Amino acid sequence: MNDYRIASIPGDGIGVDVTVEARKVLDAAAAKHGFSLAWNEFDWSCERYTKAGAMMPDDGVDQLAAFDGIFLGAVGFPGVPDHVSLWGLLIPLRRAFQQYVNLRPVRLLPGTTSVLAGRSAEELEMVIVRENSEGEYSAIGGRHNTGRPDEFVLQESVFTRVGVERIIRYAFELARTRSGRVTSATKSNGLIHSMPFWDEIFAEVAAGYPDVRAEQCHVDALAARMVQAPERLDVVVGSNLFGDILSDLAAAVTGGLGMAPSGNINPSGEYPSMFEAVHGSAPDIAGQGIANPVAQILAGAMMLEHLGETVAAQAIRTAVDEVLTAGTELTPDLGGTATTTRLGTAVTKAL
Amino acid sequence: MNDYRIASIPGDGIGVDVTVEARKVLDAAAAKHGFSLAWNEFDWSCERYTKAGAMMPDDGVDQLAAFDGIFLGAVGFPGVPDHVSLWGLLIPLRRAFQQYVNLRPVRLLPGTTSVLAGRSAEELEMVIVRENSEGEYSAIGGRHNTGRPDEFVLQESVFTRVGVERIIRYAFELARTRSGRVTSATKSNGLIHSMPFWDEIFAEVAAGYPDVRAEQCHVDALAARMVQAPERLDVVVGSNLFGDILSDLAAAVTGGLGMAPSGNINPSGEYPSMFEAVHGSAPDIAGQGIANPVAQILAGAMMLEHLGETVAAQAIRTAVDEVLTAGTELTPDLGGTATTTRLGTAVTKAL
Ligand SMILES: CC(C)[C@H](C(=O)O)[C@@H](O)C(=O)O
Ligand SMILES: CC(C)[C@H](C(=O)O)[C@@H](O)C(=O)O
Repeated sequence: MNDYRIASIPGDGIGVDVTVEARKVLDAAAAKHGFSLAWNEFDWSCERYTKAGAMMPDDGVDQLAAFDGIFLGAVGFPGVPDHVSLWGLLIPLRRAFQQYVNLRPVRLLPGTTSVLAGRSAEELEMVIVRENSEGEYSAIGGRHNTGRPDEFVLQESVFTRVGVERIIRYAFELARTRSGRVTSATKSNGLIHSMPFWDEIFAEVAAGYPDVRAEQCHVDALAARMVQAPERLDVVVGSNLFGDILSDLAAAVTGGLGMAPSGNINPSGEYPSMFEAVHGSAPDIAGQGIANPVAQILAGAMMLEHLGETVAAQAIRTAVDEVLTAGTELTPDLGGTATTTRLGTAVTKAL
Repeated sequence: MNDYRIASIPGDGIGVDVTVEARKVLDAAAAKHGFSLAWNEFDWSCERYTKAGAMMPDDGVDQLAAFDGIFLGAVGFPGVPDHVSLWGLLIPLRRAFQQYVNLRPVRLLPGTTSVLAGRSAEELEMVIVRENSEGEYSAIGGRHNTGRPDEFVLQESVFTRVGVERIIRYAFELARTRSGRVTSATKSNGLIHSMPFWDEIFAEVAAGYPDVRAEQCHVDALAARMVQAPERLDVVVGSNLFGDILSDLAAAVTGGLGMAPSGNINPSGEYPSMFEAVHGSAPDIAGQGIANPVAQILAGAMMLEHLGETVAAQAIRTAVDEVLTAGTELTPDLGGTATTTRLGTAVTKAL
């Protein structure tokens, strides 16, 4: 029997609420499909930060390195600046473990409706492949003339050939297993160093995949296309920032942020990958039992898929679809009155 | 009688098609409302670039400096890289003339439908105030280790206190004349130098406008809100890149890109301001008489407004509304069969 060691970091706010339910579902799937999940829980969070002065211990990365997967709730809490909470946990983990792919599949789940008029579920299914280790999210930069009227800030973006090539290649490989189409987000007309470089590498990689239809589109126009003609998008590859914006938009256009899972993937398997919902910690509704656990449950399915438990992963997705279709155990954001726990329990039963 | 000297730069592709119609409308408005427009046409374009090696002459900026307004079609043509065409004309003009405000009002025009389900016109009206002179669009940066496997690119963003403060202040002043609400696009959790600086200045400026409701939102979440809850947005202020993405998205969510005008404004009046459609040169449909001239006509109305001809500007907007409501003279993108010229003529008549 396969036994997987999973590091669970519920984090803050609704991260805690939804992780409990998702673990319940994952354990049920494991029991049914003949493997087991050994959970280790870590209290790394903004709460820890306010007490101990750091989101995680100094050797946090080392503590996680031997796990088979990392299951993250959400971090963020009022009073702790975002750039502290995220650069103290999420972003360093993504980088230390070379999770250079942020994979964000979206689809219109049954029983939910899109904000877009007259769109069918088939038209609203795509996956955002986001670069997750460099680009616009860089710690390089700083202030000059601080406090003076002529103060200014520099913020450096860093794009490496290795980093750009591997994410684009991943997108092409993925497209081969799906529609055979890749759309690259660019902005080479405005950002005249980074994006022409990105485009150049995109063209080079595309040349090696003559069977995949490759196109590029400026990120502003691509955002517009996502609401005007989403059916023509399938695999969308973008830089750290562009992938972030486009994946939130894609989630909003399909089922909403409560439904969107996300994998921070180290494709070589050398380091553990990390799975989380796209949504944040939503402190305003935390602990009230009303958070929608679907995104976190689906993030769990992505984790199982990554571990090779494909059948169990698919079973979870099917169970979620069934519960949403039945429509009796929906959380308030889905128009129901059920609690987080009831939705989680319903999915567990449907398994 | 007021006489305004206008520099017209039709540019490339449909820029030429729509500028002709917009000038017709503007001249009719001038005749009716007792002022005149003296047009000077400049052939600055990608076509010029392919012949003369530059989008505009060396003294291009000087040639335009004495005009009361600049009316720009669109630039861009296959074979001329975007970063050449835009950094050779549009972007230098925005900067030389300190057009630090890029104002992009959007609304759902009569007779058109939103891609969003069940939204009324009142819910779909907002204005994007985009920083237009610095930020992510910077020429600073370059390549290292060119052609080697360890090649990388740096791209610098530059945010100055002066630049950030003036655009945010502009947004607050504008909000006072509208809903009294300003939403600032940030991403301080990912971009840890530039955006915390932006947020800090936003808070400082907001303190001086206790009558305006100020909020900030990460750009990814804001893109999601634009499709999920557009009715809660009115004045949205963002950096050069964020404003660009959000304004295309806002245009797509309301009437579409064929309807969205844009003003590059120098608020002090020291230099001429420049007005254009948000859409590009669309070379694939250029010269066929099918381009929608509405965005360019509305850009003309913005120009008149800026020149102080408020009544004429409003008359043009009303005429556009009437023609769209009547619905007999619509271009193909609006579901009709009329030509660019017929739509332009219809608006002229409605005046
Ligand atoms: C053409 C391009 C440089 C431009 C921009 O991003 O500024 C365009 O998208 C716009 O919005 O005016
Ligand atoms: C929390 C934040 C740093 C993060 C990001 O932008 O990466 C989030 O928006 C996400 O998409 O995971």
